[in-house]
Order: sequence, then structure tokens, then C-alpha cells
Amino acid sequence: MSDPRKGVVLLSGGLDSATILAAAIDEGFDCYCLSFEYGQRHNTELAFARRLASRLGAIEHRVAQIDLKVFGGSALTDKNLQVPDFNEQSGSIPITYVPARNTVFLSFALAWAEVLGALDVFIGVNAVDYSGYPDCRPEFIQAFESMANLATRRGVEGQKLEIHAPLLQLSKGEIISKGLALGVDYAETVSCYQLDTVGAACGRCDSCGLRREGFAAAGVNDPTLYQAADRD
Amino acid sequence: MSDPRKGVVLLSGGLDSATILAAAIDEGFDCYCLSFEYGQRHNTELAFARRLASRLGAIEHRVAQIDLKVFGGSALTDKNLQVPDFNEQSGSIPITYVPARNTVFLSFALAWAEVLGALDVFIGVNAVDYSGYPDCRPEFIQAFESMANLATRRGVEGQKLEIHAPLLQLSKGEIISKGLALGVDYAETVSCYQLDTVGAACGRCDSCGLRREGFAAAGVNDPTLYQAADRD
Repeated sequence: MSDPRKGVVLLSGGLDSATILAAAIDEGFDCYCLSFEYGQRHNTELAFARRLASRLGAIEHRVAQIDLKVFGGSALTDKNLQVPDFNEQSGSIPITYVPARNTVFLSFALAWAEVLGALDVFIGVNAVDYSGYPDCRPEFIQAFESMANLATRRGVEGQKLEIHAPLLQLSKGEIISKGLALGVDYAETVSCYQLDTVGAACGRCDSCGLRREGFAAAGVNDPTLYQAADRD
Repeated sequence: MSDPRKGVVLLSGGLDSATILAAAIDEGFDCYCLSFEYGQRHNTELAFARRLASRLGAIEHRVAQIDLKVFGGSALTDKNLQVPDFNEQSGSIPITYVPARNTVFLSFALAWAEVLGALDVFIGVNAVDYSGYPDCRPEFIQAFESMANLATRRGVEGQKLEIHAPLLQLSKGEIISKGLALGVDYAETVSCYQLDTVGAACGRCDSCGLRREGFAAAGVNDPTLYQAADRD
């Protein structure tokens, strides 16, 4: 039996996914949040995800253990590769790209949706202020949705599974404005690829750079705790 | 850099995937085999996969640890659910279906292909003598391939990633005949969902039933070791 009120939300603990969780709850969905322990160097984000799920009012939060480190190839999962600074990189796909990560994450969300009877999956990808990852583009999300409807029991039974990516066409500043209107406390989110042990952001990586620009564009205070060298 | 000789092969240790590995090697591919420890009750199959990769001449074999048990919902990953006997089930999707399993497996294969620079992924799904799983159908494979070409670095760069499912339209008997011609020793493969501790097959589950019928249809001896009750 499917339940149209249930939604599976991919929750990283970051600014974007906190916003989609708040928006999905605001739309009336009962939200089941999914995070991944995938060998990321920034796995402090899982503690942020757990707290966000609770504060924003999700029904449940699960963390799936998956092994993406087994393949290497990304600075986010391979400690021998260095995370580049914001604006330091070329125009091509950066080294922080984790191969097929959103495909893998959405596949797991699809599996849980099948078991829950949910027909709606939410992902916080963004095609405006993003890092040039191929799996953050609208055409990828559409193709995944088409595939998902052929992959699963509900699809075979003629029900329509929908992949929601409500931030796809928003700038970082617009995302922040939207989340603030929904009551998101962005001090409880984390974007940095290389947080230190007390949870302070490096202020230098691509993800910190986009986040800083976003708060500036939204015209609001950036509540992020940055490491000392960047707070002067 | 992509390398057109490299192929990623999803290898379960079963009859179908052993056949596609032999066929891909016969076509000249350097094969990188991928298996999963996903909480399956029949994880003896991983030892079979390791041996098959070595015997058939794969370049490498990796086992990715992933957590599909976290969602439950299948008799293959939930020990509280019973595996039904062959022909015991209704015409609908059986309880041994693991939600979105092939989507998850292909997503991981895609990740490894990206890192390796491979443009070819092989999967042993079969739409003739199969168990009615939605993710074993040709339209699913095609949709996954379309999505994969939008999800990845190679796709963005204009290279074409191909999902090969060469058994899609073959009967189990035809698969066995094909494999025998390629030198596959099917005594080294396992199909059973509930092997006992010495590696003998139950002879009763859906997967054993399809395997037995396949050897009969191919007109060759079935080399499978079945449990005593079924050998009389």
C-alpha cells in the first residue's frame, strides 16, 4: 500500500537539504530522512543531520552505511587527495566530485520509499550556485525519475514516483531566504568539506565559498562558525 | 581518460553473472568484477564470486559493503520473512524481491566505472526465466543507461556509457548452453537463496527451481550439490 503523505528526504546536514526538509514538512509530508556514512572526510555532518531531523520535525532519521571509499577517485573520500580552495579550480568537474554519488543516494532513497510505500523523494541539488557536478543538473533528475518508475513495484503497478528537487533553479541566496521564512536555523547546518574537531568551518573550500556568498546575497548575517584564521 | 577495453561486471557468484563474465572476457574486455555484501542471507555467494573471478580471468574483484538491511522489506535480507518454495507464489512480485536492488548495484558499478575510466558495465539480468522483478526488464536497463549518461563525468564529456545485459532475452537453458561453450564450470556457481553450511542448495526455492529447469532444458547434467532430502 502506498501512502501519499510519506516522503523520503535525503538529508546531508547541509544548508540545502535542511531547506528541503523544512519545505517538505511545510507542504504536509511526513518526512523520513536518510543520511549516509560513505567514507566522507566530513562525517561530522551526520551529527548535524540527526539534530536537524529532530528539530525540524521529521518522523524518522536513518543513516545507511555504504562504502564509496572502495573506489576512491574523490578528494571527499580519499585522504591522499587535497580539497582545493574556492575559486582555485578550473571550469571542469572538480576533484571533490564523488563519482555517481547522487545516483547512489537516490537509489537508496528509492529502496526505502518502496518499503515505506512512499511515492515522493526529496533531494536538495541545485543547478545555479553549485560546483559543476554532472549529477546536480535538471536533466539528470528527470532521467532518474523516469528510471525509478520502471525500477520499482509501484511503477509496475502504475503509480507515479516523483523525485522532487525544489532548489534546482534557486540561487544560494534564494535558498537561504526560503529557509529563513520556514524557520530554519542555519547555525545548525554545516557545509564545509573539512570541519575541524570543534566543528568550525575552514572558510576556504568550495562549499564554504558558496555558502558565504549565499548569505551575502540574501543580505542576512552568516551564522557559521569559521576557523580562527578566517575570522579576522 | 577512458579505456574502452575496461568493463565493470556485476558478479553475484550465480549462474547468470558467471556467464556474462565469461562472455565479456571472450569479447576482449579487461574485467573488473564487483560484488556486494548487502545483508543477504545467502552471503556464501561471495566466496563463489571470488573464486569465479579468479578462475575465469578477471583483472580484479572487489566487494562493496552496503546496507540494504537497514530498510528491510525482503525475504532475502530480513530473517523474519520466509523464502517461499518454487511455484508456491502468486503471479505478482515475490517477497524475495529486494527493493531497488539492481538500481543500487548498477549505481555502484557506475561509480567504479567512472574511477576506472570504463565505459562498459555488464549485468546478468534476465527477462525470460526470471522471478518477476521489475528491475530485470529491458525497459529498466534502457532507462538506467540513459540516466547514467547524464549522471557522470564521461557522459558530460560526450562519451557513451553502455549497460550490457546480454542475457536479457535468453532462456535459462540458452544461458547454460552459452556458458558451457565458453568453458564455465557451473559447479562453481551458486543460485540458491538458502544454502546450508556445507554449501548444498535447498532445491526448493525459486532460484533453485529456475536453475534445475534450466539444466533440464539445456539437456545437460546439473552439477549442483543439493541437500539430502532433495537428492532422493
